[in-house]
Amino acid sequence: MNQDELFYQIKKKKSFLCVGLDTDENRIPESLKLQDDPIFEFNRQIIDATNDLCVAYKPNVAFYESLGSRGWQSLEKTIAYVKKNYPEQFIIADAKRGDIGNSSSLYARAFFEQLKVDAVTIAPYMGEDSVKPFLLYPGTWGIILALTSNKGAADFQYLKEGESEDAFFEKVLKTSQKWGTTENIMYVVGATKAEKLKEIRKIVPDHFLLVPGVGAQGGSLEEVAKYGMNKKCGLLVNSSRGIIYASCEKDFADKAHDAALKIQIKMEEYLGKAGI
Amino acid sequence: MNQDELFYQIKKKKSFLCVGLDTDENRIPESLKLQDDPIFEFNRQIIDATNDLCVAYKPNVAFYESLGSRGWQSLEKTIAYVKKNYPEQFIIADAKRGDIGNSSSLYARAFFEQLKVDAVTIAPYMGEDSVKPFLLYPGTWGIILALTSNKGAADFQYLKEGESEDAFFEKVLKTSQKWGTTENIMYVVGATKAEKLKEIRKIVPDHFLLVPGVGAQGGSLEEVAKYGMNKKCGLLVNSSRGIIYASCEKDFADKAHDAALKIQIKMEEYLGKAGI
Repeated sequence: MNQDELFYQIKKKKSFLCVGLDTDENRIPESLKLQDDPIFEFNRQIIDATNDLCVAYKPNVAFYESLGSRGWQSLEKTIAYVKKNYPEQFIIADAKRGDIGNSSSLYARAFFEQLKVDAVTIAPYMGEDSVKPFLLYPGTWGIILALTSNKGAADFQYLKEGESEDAFFEKVLKTSQKWGTTENIMYVVGATKAEKLKEIRKIVPDHFLLVPGVGAQGGSLEEVAKYGMNKKCGLLVNSSRGIIYASCEKDFADKAHDAALKIQIKMEEYLGKAGI
Repeated sequence: MNQDELFYQIKKKKSFLCVGLDTDENRIPESLKLQDDPIFEFNRQIIDATNDLCVAYKPNVAFYESLGSRGWQSLEKTIAYVKKNYPEQFIIADAKRGDIGNSSSLYARAFFEQLKVDAVTIAPYMGEDSVKPFLLYPGTWGIILALTSNKGAADFQYLKEGESEDAFFEKVLKTSQKWGTTENIMYVVGATKAEKLKEIRKIVPDHFLLVPGVGAQGGSLEEVAKYGMNKKCGLLVNSSRGIIYASCEKDFADKAHDAALKIQIKMEEYLGKAGI
């Protein structure tokens, strides 16, 4: 999916919501646990209940991998389900991969050829040859970690380089954008640092940003929209727990719909204010 | 496995060799392709042929993940096989994971509870809470990327912090060693930068270092031993392609044995020189 197609979906649905499928076996309703594949069944119902309100789904691979190969099967089924039933959705594997070129090529194959997602998140520590293999598949995206929403982000991402003004995450933004284009690179920018979005937009005015950390992690959607939006919206704001665990009872899918709707209504307002 | 147990194996086998199981479906002998699980069968024969010459095995997870859930099954079988037949071996999942604390905990569960490996490689970009969940399982290890052996290492790992002398990888070494001990943290230091090992040993004199990049990537074993060895050896030197693809014919296991033996003989010499 290219940038214009994604922007078209955002305008059509009046939403830039990404639903995070961080599905934890221990947190799904008891009633599902008798199913063959409770994780997939939970995801299926969440997806059916929310697809009209969001433009993207983002399974965090850690949740699936923690169950070994059967977790991978649930992930494969979930992605295949979205692709078959809601092909307009943008699917992000939140995997934070990155290795030497040769190995990164294999990770790219895992996500773009086996799972067939639209995008993969990438850790930039190992530099250009670790990132580039994710930028070679037509119509797919590498989403590079820039400024993350966790506490540990402070340990390294804010280090200043030499005598310049650049923090390390800014150096990552400046250097890595040369490795691709606005059509195959996005960046992760945590919402807990919404005020930083203003500076970040000076460095990457036209890239899409994937913004986690709204809701459970404390970020403000209004500030993200205010500081981060560009002419083509340029934002995918993720919410995971706030939506998928809105209820832990049988009504979880309905409640997920309601939680997503609440966010979509706000997004529609902010898009309207921006004239989109 | 703790440091003393690992050191005991090194002394016993006169080897600090780690065999990298970077098993590529396209590079295994034709004769194996009729097997149910050619990847596992290849690994099994490599392991049987080399286990007396090495102290560790390191499957790079990218190779398995590129095949989806069936690749994960081959990985699970490979690790279970080593644990059952050669329990003295140290098993490293070369996964380069790292996410917010909550998600890193799940990756730790994947590797230490599901796969039951001894160690996992970790990308440090997201800081303390992304690393610590890998340091909580008794007797297991997080192996943090410091200086990698690929070309892209130059993009960020050498950036200097402020007016100090520290390159970013040195900052990673200094900061992250506070998060654990020499009994649960190791570091990845690429062999292509063997001269750097001298400086690195000033920062982390007592940690084990996992050194990739000897052989195919051009690093010198002699220099690594010279600059990197400490009183308990403190080194695991990895070789992947040079051993497992020493032949692509039916004799691949014998040839892998010979290639590993060649390295082990040198290692015995360097250990002897160091009085170990």
